[in-house]
Amino acid sequence: MLDRRWAGGIAVVALAGAAVMLNAAAREAPAVERIDFGAVRTPVEPAWRAELTPASKAPVKEFRIPVTHERIEIADGVDYDGWTFGGTVPGPVLRVREGDHVKVTLVNESDTPHSIDFHAARIPMDKAFATIMPGEETTFEFDARDAGAYLVHCGTQPVLMHIMQGMYMSIIVDPKGGWGTKADHEFVLIQSEFYAKQGEDGAWGPDWNAAMAKDASYVVFNGRAFQYRNHPLDVQVGDRVRLFVVNAGPSLGSDFHVVGTIFNRVYPDGDPGNALTGVQTYRVPAGGGAVFETVFEEDGSGEGTYAFVTHAFADATKGAVGLIRVGRPVVADSPR
Amino acid sequence: MLDRRWAGGIAVVALAGAAVMLNAAAREAPAVERIDFGAVRTPVEPAWRAELTPASKAPVKEFRIPVTHERIEIADGVDYDGWTFGGTVPGPVLRVREGDHVKVTLVNESDTPHSIDFHAARIPMDKAFATIMPGEETTFEFDARDAGAYLVHCGTQPVLMHIMQGMYMSIIVDPKGGWGTKADHEFVLIQSEFYAKQGEDGAWGPDWNAAMAKDASYVVFNGRAFQYRNHPLDVQVGDRVRLFVVNAGPSLGSDFHVVGTIFNRVYPDGDPGNALTGVQTYRVPAGGGAVFETVFEEDGSGEGTYAFVTHAFADATKGAVGLIRVGRPVVADSPR
Amino acid sequence: MLDRRWAGGIAVVALAGAAVMLNAAAREAPAVERIDFGAVRTPVEPAWRAELTPASKAPVKEFRIPVTHERIEIADGVDYDGWTFGGTVPGPVLRVREGDHVKVTLVNESDTPHSIDFHAARIPMDKAFATIMPGEETTFEFDARDAGAYLVHCGTQPVLMHIMQGMYMSIIVDPKGGWGTKADHEFVLIQSEFYAKQGEDGAWGPDWNAAMAKDASYVVFNGRAFQYRNHPLDVQVGDRVRLFVVNAGPSLGSDFHVVGTIFNRVYPDGDPGNALTGVQTYRVPAGGGAVFETVFEEDGSGEGTYAFVTHAFADATKGAVGLIRVGRPVVADSPR
Repeated sequence: MLDRRWAGGIAVVALAGAAVMLNAAAREAPAVERIDFGAVRTPVEPAWRAELTPASKAPVKEFRIPVTHERIEIADGVDYDGWTFGGTVPGPVLRVREGDHVKVTLVNESDTPHSIDFHAARIPMDKAFATIMPGEETTFEFDARDAGAYLVHCGTQPVLMHIMQGMYMSIIVDPKGGWGTKADHEFVLIQSEFYAKQGEDGAWGPDWNAAMAKDASYVVFNGRAFQYRNHPLDVQVGDRVRLFVVNAGPSLGSDFHVVGTIFNRVYPDGDPGNALTGVQTYRVPAGGGAVFETVFEEDGSGEGTYAFVTHAFADATKGAVGLIRVGRPVVADSPR
Repeated sequence: MLDRRWAGGIAVVALAGAAVMLNAAAREAPAVERIDFGAVRTPVEPAWRAELTPASKAPVKEFRIPVTHERIEIADGVDYDGWTFGGTVPGPVLRVREGDHVKVTLVNESDTPHSIDFHAARIPMDKAFATIMPGEETTFEFDARDAGAYLVHCGTQPVLMHIMQGMYMSIIVDPKGGWGTKADHEFVLIQSEFYAKQGEDGAWGPDWNAAMAKDASYVVFNGRAFQYRNHPLDVQVGDRVRLFVVNAGPSLGSDFHVVGTIFNRVYPDGDPGNALTGVQTYRVPAGGGAVFETVFEEDGSGEGTYAFVTHAFADATKGAVGLIRVGRPVVADSPR
Repeated sequence: MLDRRWAGGIAVVALAGAAVMLNAAAREAPAVERIDFGAVRTPVEPAWRAELTPASKAPVKEFRIPVTHERIEIADGVDYDGWTFGGTVPGPVLRVREGDHVKVTLVNESDTPHSIDFHAARIPMDKAFATIMPGEETTFEFDARDAGAYLVHCGTQPVLMHIMQGMYMSIIVDPKGGWGTKADHEFVLIQSEFYAKQGEDGAWGPDWNAAMAKDASYVVFNGRAFQYRNHPLDVQVGDRVRLFVVNAGPSLGSDFHVVGTIFNRVYPDGDPGNALTGVQTYRVPAGGGAVFETVFEEDGSGEGTYAFVTHAFADATKGAVGLIRVGRPVVADSPR
């Protein structure tokens, strides 16, 4: 069973006792939610990376995000020397609500300069997204005024290198009035490309020329090629499923599609005011996001396997394919 | 003159007498329309491939689609060993109405495994789109609940190979209330790429490495480079023209544009609820579709030649250019 | 200081006295505005290329556009033998109002065949956009019926070559009712790619094979790599800024984004009826355009530096990055 408390990296820290954190599930909304992503890392299991829990009701959210350099597994047996937010690629998923005040502290625990660019923030980059040296930290604050599914990435030059090395994550800003419908499951899928060449020690690292030529080695969801083929996203027949798709690039678009269904709704950039209906495939630009909703047939005919892909199949072939497994709910609590 | 009865592959079989089929033109709607695309092949002449006839009013549509391997001509003098639905690339155009019940029988008459993935269907892929062996057939049914211009393609691994080999076609699902306006002409244009290398026997076949690198040899509408330069789509001054553009990829987007006009309406993914107005160019993602409408000037000033292209001109240069010829109507039946 | 009279190339000719021109600022709208872009060239300074002035109220606009071959600087120290409309790359910005009658005279002052394709026009290409020989000129007229941000480019075969050589510009058609809000600054940004190889004489020229492979040497805004890094677009805190982004390609999309803000409005293709809200990144297709609006925070927190990019970072790395500098307004004329 999935330990839902870990989903999206939220609520991690309270358990670990490594930071002051007021639990999102508390009856009365705390004033401040604090999460220190340096205290406990987001697990890298596929489902944990994808499934979202609701945002805390705290009107102020504080996030401490360390930057580290890590050896990460980007495909089966492929270890890559990457750069991270919070120790994983992608970094943790942040979730806030429209109107929340967000305070970010970036701590550079690596040995090279880095920064952080929040697409959800309206704030000048020289103030908020400035590059900090090894050992330094920086803090900035913003109001999350615009609902959406946003990319967060390192903005230090060359940005192409910092993104291809793994420095991206997402922040979801829920609309004030909610998403219009209640979803039974919410997942985050971050598409990105790796451009890899093997070093003399056997580990893989960045291939700059390949990146400039957009000749990707891997195109992945949530940091690892094909991980959702062996670890499908599990939902039930009749479920309404909301997918927050964020495209980190660094360079390729995502022609996002789910084999076997049609999206009831697509919200370009995650603004419910931009709703499209009845969509087979929608392109999420590099550096953009969108919210996709579908319902798997209620009458039981929907039971079975579905696949999410970028329908640009040269990219899908490099890893951007995953499965959704739609099961039959166990009727256990029916009245006798 | 065009034999309109053949347009889109609809109504073919009744003439050929090769299957039980109730004609779409019949006064009273028959209960079932059956078309066996194995009995008579869709002609490959350019206009036949493009022009659509109305959907039959039969609330149940049954399609038998054989899979065959064929030598096809993808550009002047370039014979390619491709894989097909119904003997042609693209395969036949299917047209149904929102709410119709659709029954598909896929028959594998080739010597390798294949399958069929209907983007218009909400049905799990392991049930409906499963791969079948040579000599086998499979049947599945679905309700066409969502209006649109959909891709149909082979979903057998590697999908990239099966699409680049030619296994794609389209299904149009007309909205229950129609498209809002009456079109004088409706055309289907399926954009796709070929990745070709010449074998020792002189015929061309798939170049997997080129496909993985998105280095297309040809980018085409309806299966053959530049075919609509010599065989323009013919319409009249004042005509409202509806173009159903489906992008089979396998990998490239289509920045669809018509030189000399502006689209009055674009319906992303073919849902009239998603209407855009006043559009010069709209991107159809790989694996997606859109409906484009324009009217050629009524006052006669519109008479002349127009071109449809993907405005990604490296792709247009490889074959994705065609012409629309807007003529002056012959006034023959005016009152004297 | 910027000489605003030159912005966008409008009002150039009145000063130069080289053509009959009635000034746009006149109290009573003149019947005809005439601009001869052969008489005085649009300056190539970055700000002059970007900042727009309002359209003249003259209901008839006449433009004379010479085609010339020029050595242009596409990046610091990189001289390229290009082809131009009006002597610069991009050519001048035209601005008209919905309903205006536009008359274009193209004069081929070069030694090879050329033409001009107005995306804003509904007019057959064989009549209006026909290729003319060296020394020839051609005239055509159209009504600007559709509001938008349009590409204008040479349509002579091979179009890929003529676009990559620099033959593009934009025409803005203001909606009859205006853009809904009053902007404090309006800028035009034309994204395009150069595919360059060095000739024996040291100057650069077109690399056809690179263009067919979409392997761009430079991706630029308004004709020159990184020009707005050293010459930021200057606005004030609290300003509403409207960006008309036109993508000349020839082949790549623009995933347009401004670092540090979110677009309040995006009008795909420049039609206000197509408004999207709350957008981080929107893809402008090759051969397309879009209008982007944002407001830099009024309370002073918005003061600082922002960057506009295509978020396809391999392309941004090749030159498609510029800065917006948001300053604090000097309060000089407040009542004492």
